[in-house]
Amino acid sequence: MNYCSACGAPVTKKVPEGDNLPRFVCEICRAIHYHNPKIVAGCIPEWGGEILLCRRAIEPKSGLWTFPAGFMEIGESIEQAAARETLEEAQAQVERISLFAVLSLPHIGQAYLVFRGPMSSPNFGAGEESLEAQLFSLSAVPWDQIAFPVVKDVLRRYVDDVTRGEFQVHVASLPDRLC
Amino acid sequence: MNYCSACGAPVTKKVPEGDNLPRFVCEICRAIHYHNPKIVAGCIPEWGGEILLCRRAIEPKSGLWTFPAGFMEIGESIEQAAARETLEEAQAQVERISLFAVLSLPHIGQAYLVFRGPMSSPNFGAGEESLEAQLFSLSAVPWDQIAFPVVKDVLRRYVDDVTRGEFQVHVASLPDRLC
Repeated sequence: MNYCSACGAPVTKKVPEGDNLPRFVCEICRAIHYHNPKIVAGCIPEWGGEILLCRRAIEPKSGLWTFPAGFMEIGESIEQAAARETLEEAQAQVERISLFAVLSLPHIGQAYLVFRGPMSSPNFGAGEESLEAQLFSLSAVPWDQIAFPVVKDVLRRYVDDVTRGEFQVHVASLPDRLC
Repeated sequence: MNYCSACGAPVTKKVPEGDNLPRFVCEICRAIHYHNPKIVAGCIPEWGGEILLCRRAIEPKSGLWTFPAGFMEIGESIEQAAARETLEEAQAQVERISLFAVLSLPHIGQAYLVFRGPMSSPNFGAGEESLEAQLFSLSAVPWDQIAFPVVKDVLRRYVDDVTRGEFQVHVASLPDRLC
């Protein structure tokens, strides 16, 4: 950030009065510009004991696999965001999805909120940002071709829970080197 | 947003190529400025069957009660943010906190992630943004002096769970009129 988005004057970085963190501040119109973490809403779509993954058609990590996930938008709930991303990236509809994981990535300012739930039908396909979508049995997850460490972490927790026979809501934070 | 925060030129609002929502776009440097929902991290601190609330010293809703909560910062996990807000607003330390509620407020672009957990000691006090902090038994919660509908909603769920004898992770969305 170089300029005030309200008045166009150059901003300076300093700790505002009553605050304890440096922010971008406009000395002209006095606006304080906060930058906060973003929510990535995701979903593990389930069908007949398999899960639906999609292969990314865009950078970063084009060509690698992930569950559908993307930035939550203003005007939608987190669960709506997860379902929307599933429709956009894997052309699949999910119903009655449940919260599965809340994973913070402090060093890149992201929080993943990942749901899981049954697909409404076996219909799916590659959305615009995907090269392909595919159902995987849990013994066939392409572990060495997963796009991001956070995705691998969530999928491992999912496989563990299925193996154990009980889902829990996972809350964790990913270490710096995995963000 | 009126000006590009990268180059200072005026921005226009339009749907970027490959997108489906209007964004603030800079026609000069081509930057696309996304606005995403913010995470409010909160905590219900527990001590001896009572919960710790604080009375807001700042607007909006100065003078009314809430559990400690505030915007998550980049560089911290959600649970760290919840513990930090508890320390800042109620001068209390919490330990081993558990996720209790994930409440989306779509129309104001916020998502509340609220934890609950025991205080490390009975020490607490009014932080800079609080007029006072006080432990309340669940039969004495000041329902008609709660700062925000989302806070009241979470506290009702908390009392219900205690009454039922089992905590669950609540995932819900608050209707427009309550945001």
